[in-house]
Amino acid sequence: MAEKKEVPKISVEDLAIFCKRRGFVYPSAEIYGGMAGIWDFGPVGVELKNNIKKEWWDYYVKKREDVVGIDGAIITPRKLWEASGHLSSFYDFAVKCKKCKNATKIDSNEAGKVKCDKCGGEYEVLGKFNQLFPLQVGALNPTEAYLRGETAQLIFANFKLVQENARMSLPFGIAQIGKVFRNEISPREFIFRDRELEQMEIEYFIAPKQECPYELIDQEILIYSQQMQVNKKEAIKMKISKALKDKIILRDWHAYWISQQLNWFNSLGLDLDNFRLRQHLTDEKSHYSTDTWDLEYKFPMGWKELQGFADRSNYDLTQHQKFSGKSLEMQDPRFGKVLPEVVCEPSLGVERAFMIILLDAYNYDVKRDNVVLKLHPKLAPIKIGVFPIVKKDEEVVKLSRKVFEELKEEFETVYDDSGSIGRRYARNDEIGTPYCITIDGDSIKGKDVTIRDRDTTKQVRVKVKDLIETIRKLISGKLAFTDL
Amino acid sequence: MAEKKEVPKISVEDLAIFCKRRGFVYPSAEIYGGMAGIWDFGPVGVELKNNIKKEWWDYYVKKREDVVGIDGAIITPRKLWEASGHLSSFYDFAVKCKKCKNATKIDSNEAGKVKCDKCGGEYEVLGKFNQLFPLQVGALNPTEAYLRGETAQLIFANFKLVQENARMSLPFGIAQIGKVFRNEISPREFIFRDRELEQMEIEYFIAPKQECPYELIDQEILIYSQQMQVNKKEAIKMKISKALKDKIILRDWHAYWISQQLNWFNSLGLDLDNFRLRQHLTDEKSHYSTDTWDLEYKFPMGWKELQGFADRSNYDLTQHQKFSGKSLEMQDPRFGKVLPEVVCEPSLGVERAFMIILLDAYNYDVKRDNVVLKLHPKLAPIKIGVFPIVKKDEEVVKLSRKVFEELKEEFETVYDDSGSIGRRYARNDEIGTPYCITIDGDSIKGKDVTIRDRDTTKQVRVKVKDLIETIRKLISGKLAFTDL
Repeated sequence: MAEKKEVPKISVEDLAIFCKRRGFVYPSAEIYGGMAGIWDFGPVGVELKNNIKKEWWDYYVKKREDVVGIDGAIITPRKLWEASGHLSSFYDFAVKCKKCKNATKIDSNEAGKVKCDKCGGEYEVLGKFNQLFPLQVGALNPTEAYLRGETAQLIFANFKLVQENARMSLPFGIAQIGKVFRNEISPREFIFRDRELEQMEIEYFIAPKQECPYELIDQEILIYSQQMQVNKKEAIKMKISKALKDKIILRDWHAYWISQQLNWFNSLGLDLDNFRLRQHLTDEKSHYSTDTWDLEYKFPMGWKELQGFADRSNYDLTQHQKFSGKSLEMQDPRFGKVLPEVVCEPSLGVERAFMIILLDAYNYDVKRDNVVLKLHPKLAPIKIGVFPIVKKDEEVVKLSRKVFEELKEEFETVYDDSGSIGRRYARNDEIGTPYCITIDGDSIKGKDVTIRDRDTTKQVRVKVKDLIETIRKLISGKLAFTDL
Repeated sequence: MAEKKEVPKISVEDLAIFCKRRGFVYPSAEIYGGMAGIWDFGPVGVELKNNIKKEWWDYYVKKREDVVGIDGAIITPRKLWEASGHLSSFYDFAVKCKKCKNATKIDSNEAGKVKCDKCGGEYEVLGKFNQLFPLQVGALNPTEAYLRGETAQLIFANFKLVQENARMSLPFGIAQIGKVFRNEISPREFIFRDRELEQMEIEYFIAPKQECPYELIDQEILIYSQQMQVNKKEAIKMKISKALKDKIILRDWHAYWISQQLNWFNSLGLDLDNFRLRQHLTDEKSHYSTDTWDLEYKFPMGWKELQGFADRSNYDLTQHQKFSGKSLEMQDPRFGKVLPEVVCEPSLGVERAFMIILLDAYNYDVKRDNVVLKLHPKLAPIKIGVFPIVKKDEEVVKLSRKVFEELKEEFETVYDDSGSIGRRYARNDEIGTPYCITIDGDSIKGKDVTIRDRDTTKQVRVKVKDLIETIRKLISGKLAFTDL
């Protein structure tokens, strides 16, 4: 049998169309033509996005003893970005291909070396642009400020207050979820590269040379992640093949945080075969980084950066000490007075997480002739659909409403009595609703209803009195549908 | 006995100091001197803020059938604000008192009529300022855009897409939580008037002249809200006395939404005696409003607007039709092709909600000699503290860690073994932790622990095996501590 050629389940363009049609994502203010790289999230999109953020926060902050959160401001003083180095280093070069006129951006002023990614032609440099958005704050004597380009700087600026307030000792992390803004030259690929995006970041502080306890690292995931590694030079030489492996050994804390992140994706049901690791070469690292690893994902447009894991050393804290004139040394019970290092910064864009979660979940079911979005129940925007089979039977409607009202107190639930049952199932398959409940004439006598499983279309009969507990267990993963 | 003069439990200045010291709110990027009207939320602040937003979203979106959410962008096109009228009408006048030099803002160019709020002197106008922040988007051919000044406009711009995607029929609402930005002339009173703030808004659409079903209105709350009403003219004449009542009848949908909001505050344990209603006079209404009611709160600095309830009629949808050239008429099963009206816009600032929740909860306990933050358990940043009484007893520590690990899976829990038990209780009282659990030598034999109630300091013994279920019931309000 010939090897099947792998084709993506859906292209990025089709994903954008699907997302608009189902109420996940719209081009922002589309009645005015939209804005490049800026998006609005619709009724099911906002729920999916909130669920992703909640799962991340639960996993990294709520359930951990060594991480606390903050929520810093978006408008930030100029001095913060002078200190961080972004005002002098956060530049992109706008280039245009001399041959095919393809306009895009490159990271450094080496237009002569980099070739057009469309036709291989030569680029000419159109200009150099800082990615931070400046703005004027205050009416009478305005001061220059910036929309933050990363959440990390608010973590560094508040580092000492947080450490003291929450009485943290090394190692510990500070987490933040929030919007950041980057004046990208060429936003593209749906929500992949945006001008307005949301980050989920942790800065994890350690004492200088503090080692990662070996037992912290999930060995199974670590072995897997070692297998996924790819070095850029190798990759280019070998045209990036899936089987590519090399001998780079991950540094301890990096291995730990990468394994944590893979565990998280794994717990949400994502297929780890679509992930791989890549270490940055010296000339592609950010100005603040001593070592960076990218977790890449197999997008429809190829392997691309999903998230970075940078070692920022003590670069940022040292810079902020210098520019603010204030000591950021902390008092640690074990290490005494110490300026910690940041050993790892797992930084994930909500939009990229959103995108790969949809890509992973997307399935076109030929038999049903509709899309089935196989989202993990925890992430699904709507958990339950309640459908009265016979709309005109008063008893059925009454029971359906009762079941609906009770479920809605605890779960995102929709009541749908319009169109055929098949149509109602299809509508819910397409937005990823894991369980649909139908109430029929027999339900009145038998005091039971039918639960239908999205992924298998299997149906089981459950007593009304056991319904909430059953759904609770199904969603939390304590019960498999096949065990019902 | 002489009547006790009412003094606020805490001044705004002291609240700000308390919030910084306990990790609720910091001046943003304080190591660089902070920025007026811009704040960062610390480890317990971010949790309280998230809990407020979650409770609001659960109440208004998740549990309602007639409201869906969106999450629109912050960077918005110029045309949106031309259509909304904000570019021509969202102005403030900066004024300075000729006598005492007090600089502040007034809403309209009537500096001659308005007197200095500090000394009664005459104001001179320094300038007229639009509150929207402009910025340039894109590198090569930048376009003018604005940071959104209210979330509402994203709801109007997406109105038709949302209505169609979520198949809504009238009446229905679209809700949104998110940051907005206003270049205030004089940010003041801690987080009361900010340049960067977060809104929780609903636009509730009805068919023209569609009435509010009488049975929807919570009669008890309605009667209460009628009693709270105060008209501005009357209020000024009578120097705003608490007992002031007048005969203004709330319009039906306004009454309904105001009663919903009061119910929400009530469900979170807030004292409704600190709320009152006030109808806007014709000359103080916003440019888009045909009728506005303010829910006011008794802040330490006096009665101030907590949130507005504006009737925006079909002003916004009509304007967006005109400026975009696109019809925003929807197809309704009952009303046919129709351009709805917005009959009510309950709009609440997260920071103001945050502030009154802290003010309501704040208590200085003389006997304990520490602050007790009597937050509703649902809002408390940390739900449980776990304290081993004897730090050196291995068995006690082992059981304490086991109890802690189990609780942490479900609730925000801290483990604290440093300092005296009294000190640990005090630390948790001050951030509002409702339940503290101590494990002592007897716990090993008896397989039980002590739960201590924050508000009463009462303690009860509970079996370890019943602990999670007990805490679950206490937090959800299904069990009172006194019934234990």
